[in-house]
Amino acid sequence: MILGNGYVHGGDIYRNRVRLDFSANVNPLGTPEPVKEAIRLAAEEIDRYPDPYCTDLCERLSALHGVSRDAVLCGNGAAELIFSFVSALSPKAALLPVPSFAEYETALRAAGVPITFYPLLREEGFAVTPRILEAITERTGLLLLCSPNNPTGRSIEPALLLRILDRCRETGTWLFLDECFWDLTDPDKAFLLEDALNDGDRVLLLHAFTKTYGMAGVRLGYAVSKNRELLMKMSETAQPWNVSTLAQRAGLAALDCPDWAENARALFKAEKAYLMKELTALGVSVFYGDANFLLLSDVPKLYEGLLKKGILVRDCENYRGLQKGDVRIAVRTHAENQALIAAISEVLHA
Amino acid sequence: MILGNGYVHGGDIYRNRVRLDFSANVNPLGTPEPVKEAIRLAAEEIDRYPDPYCTDLCERLSALHGVSRDAVLCGNGAAELIFSFVSALSPKAALLPVPSFAEYETALRAAGVPITFYPLLREEGFAVTPRILEAITERTGLLLLCSPNNPTGRSIEPALLLRILDRCRETGTWLFLDECFWDLTDPDKAFLLEDALNDGDRVLLLHAFTKTYGMAGVRLGYAVSKNRELLMKMSETAQPWNVSTLAQRAGLAALDCPDWAENARALFKAEKAYLMKELTALGVSVFYGDANFLLLSDVPKLYEGLLKKGILVRDCENYRGLQKGDVRIAVRTHAENQALIAAISEVLHA
Repeated sequence: MILGNGYVHGGDIYRNRVRLDFSANVNPLGTPEPVKEAIRLAAEEIDRYPDPYCTDLCERLSALHGVSRDAVLCGNGAAELIFSFVSALSPKAALLPVPSFAEYETALRAAGVPITFYPLLREEGFAVTPRILEAITERTGLLLLCSPNNPTGRSIEPALLLRILDRCRETGTWLFLDECFWDLTDPDKAFLLEDALNDGDRVLLLHAFTKTYGMAGVRLGYAVSKNRELLMKMSETAQPWNVSTLAQRAGLAALDCPDWAENARALFKAEKAYLMKELTALGVSVFYGDANFLLLSDVPKLYEGLLKKGILVRDCENYRGLQKGDVRIAVRTHAENQALIAAISEVLHA
Repeated sequence: MILGNGYVHGGDIYRNRVRLDFSANVNPLGTPEPVKEAIRLAAEEIDRYPDPYCTDLCERLSALHGVSRDAVLCGNGAAELIFSFVSALSPKAALLPVPSFAEYETALRAAGVPITFYPLLREEGFAVTPRILEAITERTGLLLLCSPNNPTGRSIEPALLLRILDRCRETGTWLFLDECFWDLTDPDKAFLLEDALNDGDRVLLLHAFTKTYGMAGVRLGYAVSKNRELLMKMSETAQPWNVSTLAQRAGLAALDCPDWAENARALFKAEKAYLMKELTALGVSVFYGDANFLLLSDVPKLYEGLLKKGILVRDCENYRGLQKGDVRIAVRTHAENQALIAAISEVLHA
């Protein structure tokens, strides 16, 4: 980005004086040691170009998701794949439930795609309900979903997701489903659409290593699709070496750490219970999040108050469909969460 | 990329059994130790998102090129910037001298831009001559140049380049100039267009860390332009975190190694003389390259013969404007070059 471009996300620890960062939804357990070690080792080989096909990584990922090798496309972070997907597909129209992750809209606008916003309702906890089925028609073009959704934390019920998939098939609508928070999600809510896909389905599923394995600074994401033509087109809209050698090695090492996500989920379960209890006791209304973050509402001065104390949270006012006083917090370690609660208490009682 | 996409470049050591790689134009001195060390240290911080503005790096680069801070845009390798440039500009037409780097054409095709090819002539050593001035008209749209050009090694005469810039200004033509090999070029041929730019000029200059600092596996490139509107648009067509923390730190460390390129240039001067002499003695015709690679012609079985010996060179048959028997070799260390000459001699006399 160049200066003047408005950065709209959390995690900007570079332009804020931050002691504790609750604004980025990254695993608070950090990066597995084998991932760091893989990067340190790969530093010896960086004078060679990366493998453009990410062969080893795609093989592991295709086995993980039970799809064929050519149903997986790696990217420079999941965010890159959002842009290459929208650019390759270039749909006539798009239906975008909001609030949701801002890069969907940015990518659609960059590709000149007209957007119909589908408002998720605060009084329904921002849930996607069966009402969305009526909104999917032959003119929809592309539907973009995120489950669990960022920044609301709500996941879509599996049965509804399957009905949405069917409705998309009936109407010839492309379905984009961001599953990036899948493995940081409460096990009873975690659901992957991979198994429901048929060959040729107009569906793209998005995954990231970023959040789960503390790899935000490395950049590695991947897409799963059984529509080969789409992945070919996406691949043609990008350079051949978009995934660095460092990212490929880090990803392989991360896949050898299956406990990492499990430990994180156990932490989130306990800590979400703690945070919900403490925040409720402080009189803050909280939307329960199925993944590793919570959306607080009606706390208008909280962002500024916490920032003064060196704590960065995500001010959600710039999310389409949210409003002043909406704040997203990441769930972190117990000590950090305690510090956050203490600080929130001070800000609210100041 | 996914399997089935045709990879058209050198450096594919992943699908060939290679002992010596002369197919990628990377500095044979490898990666400076401080760059590797910067990556090893940065491995501790990868759970945070990268700085989307690449603040420190852009400040250093703007000072290096004597331009303002917002005249520099970093990318995930120079290759990414080719795609975001073409996509952001979306010109009505493009003029592309050939042979040249294949990603220009790929990016233009991905954006649906009609291309007029401008053939560089073998009998002129593939030089860009003043004849090109007549080809630049009000209907040209975008002219893409590379100097020194890949794969021919020819640079454009500074005086001609300035006339081309003027002609582009007169006709409202956008000028893209790839200067990626600049600091591996013979000092008497090295020339940067940065100093000639006026505010608002419709010009994009492309640079890479890849070749000079042995960072092909890290991915880091940057664009320089005094057209702020263009850089804003390019920035909007990409995700905010396209340049990894590892790449940003590696780049900063590389900029602290000014001798690295100088030592490489000294090596290339001596080794190009050696290779020219030996190849000529073997009866191979060579186009002298101003940068760190040479184009050989009329050696039809050389690629296959060398590969059998575990030596990978760049078969140039798939370059538009080149033909069977054209082969590009990187200039490497003396021992490697001696091994190459010995192997070429064996292949030719077999």
